[in-house]
Amino acid sequence: MRQRLYLEDLHIGQKFVTATTLVTEEAIKEFAARYDPQPFHLDDDAAKATLFGGLAASGWHTAAMTMQLNVSSGPPLAAGIVGGGGEIQWPTPTRPGDVLRVEGEIMDIIPSRSKPDRGMIVMRMETKNQNGEVRQIIVMKLVVPRRAVAPA
Amino acid sequence: MRQRLYLEDLHIGQKFVTATTLVTEEAIKEFAARYDPQPFHLDDDAAKATLFGGLAASGWHTAAMTMQLNVSSGPPLAAGIVGGGGEIQWPTPTRPGDVLRVEGEIMDIIPSRSKPDRGMIVMRMETKNQNGEVRQIIVMKLVVPRRAVAPA
Repeated sequence: MRQRLYLEDLHIGQKFVTATTLVTEEAIKEFAARYDPQPFHLDDDAAKATLFGGLAASGWHTAAMTMQLNVSSGPPLAAGIVGGGGEIQWPTPTRPGDVLRVEGEIMDIIPSRSKPDRGMIVMRMETKNQNGEVRQIIVMKLVVPRRAVAPA
Repeated sequence: MRQRLYLEDLHIGQKFVTATTLVTEEAIKEFAARYDPQPFHLDDDAAKATLFGGLAASGWHTAAMTMQLNVSSGPPLAAGIVGGGGEIQWPTPTRPGDVLRVEGEIMDIIPSRSKPDRGMIVMRMETKNQNGEVRQIIVMKLVVPRRAVAPA
């Protein structure tokens, strides 16, 4: 089991890099068929006539793959990767053959005023392919527990 | 085929409501196993000891189901539902037995200055269950084409 990180273990500027995952044409089409059945996510020929210019993964597929990388090999936060929301951007579409990884950085640490057992961190997470092309940027607040303190 | 909407067909305040989808325990666990394998998304007993207090869908699963509803029965935009990013919030977690629908509203319409054939709309999309509990809020910019204009 990986080391579990608490709020006290984290600092602004701390970085994390995940393992990688290969994006296949089959996986793009499978996700799209279920959750985002639009021509540019389902069919290469149909995609050529669209804004995408060729088969592209659903942005939500990129988001889901990013989460899988973060959970399996991202920051091992003590309560898991639990976010209440954030901002998401897809500067370029994920393509078949992309090998994605996630680079995370802690932008801020905010102890809770009302709940002394936890805090929030602001993480910026860039999902890049093997050529460094940025496919997704997420800036998200995550809940992180503090270490238990013995009662006085 | 549904009517295709162009930028000229839209106005600020215009609303859309999708069909509904039932969220099953099996679907929650299946999505989580692949994309978000954390105990509170995989196992009801394990989830009881967490912040969630019981089995909850991954936020990214809620996002994916929201997209499916938007594509199948949301606004029939002429170029499809194509977004470059936005803000996402999960005020409460999606639970097994939820019957989700999406309520969308156009908040702004922004013609492109550089590309006369298109514009952007800002859509606020609330994903609610059968009791009106808000599971997700997305505010997203979407690309919408203008109708082709005959050359002068």
